[in-house]
Amino acid sequence: MQLSRRIEGITEGGSDGWDLFHRARAMQAAGQSVLDLTVGEHDRPTPRPILDAMHAAATAGHTGYTVAPGLPALRTAVAERVEARTGVPTRAENVLITAGGQAALFAAQMAVLDPGDRALHLDPYYATYPGTIRAAGGVPVTVPTRPEDGFQPRAPDVEAAAEGARTLLINTPNNPTGAVYDRATLEGLAELCRRRGLWLISDEVYDTQVWEGVHLSPRALPGMSERTLVAGSLSKSHAMTGSRLGWIVGPEAAIARMADLATVTTYGLPGFIQDAGLVALSDPALEAEIAAPFRRRRDLARRVLAGRPGLRLLPAQGAMYAMLDIRPTGMSGTVFAEALLDAHRIAAMPGESFGAAAAGHLRVALTLDDARLAEALEALATFAALTAARAGASA
Amino acid sequence: MQLSRRIEGITEGGSDGWDLFHRARAMQAAGQSVLDLTVGEHDRPTPRPILDAMHAAATAGHTGYTVAPGLPALRTAVAERVEARTGVPTRAENVLITAGGQAALFAAQMAVLDPGDRALHLDPYYATYPGTIRAAGGVPVTVPTRPEDGFQPRAPDVEAAAEGARTLLINTPNNPTGAVYDRATLEGLAELCRRRGLWLISDEVYDTQVWEGVHLSPRALPGMSERTLVAGSLSKSHAMTGSRLGWIVGPEAAIARMADLATVTTYGLPGFIQDAGLVALSDPALEAEIAAPFRRRRDLARRVLAGRPGLRLLPAQGAMYAMLDIRPTGMSGTVFAEALLDAHRIAAMPGESFGAAAAGHLRVALTLDDARLAEALEALATFAALTAARAGASA
Repeated sequence: MQLSRRIEGITEGGSDGWDLFHRARAMQAAGQSVLDLTVGEHDRPTPRPILDAMHAAATAGHTGYTVAPGLPALRTAVAERVEARTGVPTRAENVLITAGGQAALFAAQMAVLDPGDRALHLDPYYATYPGTIRAAGGVPVTVPTRPEDGFQPRAPDVEAAAEGARTLLINTPNNPTGAVYDRATLEGLAELCRRRGLWLISDEVYDTQVWEGVHLSPRALPGMSERTLVAGSLSKSHAMTGSRLGWIVGPEAAIARMADLATVTTYGLPGFIQDAGLVALSDPALEAEIAAPFRRRRDLARRVLAGRPGLRLLPAQGAMYAMLDIRPTGMSGTVFAEALLDAHRIAAMPGESFGAAAAGHLRVALTLDDARLAEALEALATFAALTAARAGASA
Repeated sequence: MQLSRRIEGITEGGSDGWDLFHRARAMQAAGQSVLDLTVGEHDRPTPRPILDAMHAAATAGHTGYTVAPGLPALRTAVAERVEARTGVPTRAENVLITAGGQAALFAAQMAVLDPGDRALHLDPYYATYPGTIRAAGGVPVTVPTRPEDGFQPRAPDVEAAAEGARTLLINTPNNPTGAVYDRATLEGLAELCRRRGLWLISDEVYDTQVWEGVHLSPRALPGMSERTLVAGSLSKSHAMTGSRLGWIVGPEAAIARMADLATVTTYGLPGFIQDAGLVALSDPALEAEIAAPFRRRRDLARRVLAGRPGLRLLPAQGAMYAMLDIRPTGMSGTVFAEALLDAHRIAAMPGESFGAAAAGHLRVALTLDDARLAEALEALATFAALTAARAGASA
């Protein structure tokens, strides 16, 4: 029996890019000890006060259907948070609650793409971006960013791919690169979106993890609130990856139609999780507590890796990742990652898993405790130096 | 800024069919007492052991990302349940865990419809069916069923609409009609699906609520397991509507591709909810406890309404609804429902909210405690008799 062309095409039949991750997990399952720096997930559970609030809501009877666009109180809380952080007037009607940031991205692409529409996104990129676009019927088109620019996108590169496009998807703070887009970068992209009539889909799920510069939401730039859909989430900010609670912020008319989509995709989200989300958002201390280790470990990575031959840490401005340029070793990211896993039982993702623009790089998730992270980075640096020296000797 | 044609078209800009429900809720919000028989939701919360299992899983640390197709243990438990209830060999690889039955229906339509494909469903129908098809890019085509058949579909009616169709969506036990499709009906539809090369999407979320006859899953009919996608859920069987936990069962190849869709729509579901679902499925007493009141209230409705002029209860074979034919009153379902709400503060859904085939009917959700339900049905019957007598007098 034939499936739809769309669903057959989501992954294009290729690898999901996570081969190294799967291999590391298999080694762990076989009893081997692996220092795992692959996945962007906290090394701690969701804070207990959030879980207790969830249970209190559930046992108080909040276990029935909820309204599809999200609980009014949570929509209002997200609107107030977004307005406070960006200065853009935002009401509950600008907010749709979604099953995590991924559902927000899917809803955004579904809202603006018709079958065959070209949808731009930057390379390197989070692994689900092209599949999300294809699931929504669109045609993903990558625009490279460059290590020498610290992976800040150049508007002319986007311009060169923009003919016939409907959307541009960006992500700042960025996974996998750790870049935080600066004002000039975002103003250039915004100008292009306005001039070309593009929707801007702005993935800002790491907006509480900024170590250098400031997070600027492009929705706050002139003329952009009417054409920007912002994806947000409690996953990274509150260690709530498993709760699947996120949102999309955009023009009221777009949000109203996306609520129709919510009705037919999830028919609302658990009320007890939304109540827990409300508690999470009401206590700024929680998110400060969640962000602190990543800032500390990024500083640690800078110290350990400074001046080491064979690799270079860049740009490390935000998010929970350190991107390492390991091209001096003469290896691809994939070969280096495999060799590192074999030699030292350290698992980190090859840049190639996130697109061609990150070839020769390694994404290190800062998700081990400081002592083990330092140990892993030290071994990694020694391995890179040795490999680079060999590459130099044989060159 | 232009949205996609698809998202603009989900509701076709019309009423969502829930006007009466919204009016009843507004009356309640204004402090008026309303006997509410509109929504198919239990008059009890999720059983406490399930909620406690959820909290135990969360506080034990199951708060991180999960694999997109669902936890292996839960997929296995659903497979075993389905195999035990239907006799069809079913493995974990035949099961995708979804965010409730609605997400299962959406995934099914996305898996088999390409843009513009015709998708059949029966009338009357659950409110989200056409929007789900349109969100997946399909063109919904309704096939009427008839009150005089107890709303059992006739294969020739489906045949007449089948040219160029890709899918047929059915629902047994049925919302809103309370029909349980018999073997002859299902064999007729299965034969048509095989001959026409149609996918059968079988919504079986009420499969634990059967008061007459037996539930037969069409996936168990010859040659059907390879072309049937079954939507299931814990919402109705375990009073877990708010947990959004369901599944789709189908051929392995289809499930594998639907897992790709799960990655880009939800990126997995909460692990603590899936753990709670596993506990729910492990205790048959829980679902018996949930189903019992609906059987009792259906019997109550039969007793109260038997022989009353102006209405007729039919078919009341399963699910949590009583469908009343109120055509002897001379009123449409809509006019009757509005008048009943005005005169007696009793809210029940007009048949017209579920399609043209249920015109002149009223759907009564059996979701009030027995005493208040009896009171409401008594008042409703008196009102119908009075109205019918007036209609007779003026005719």
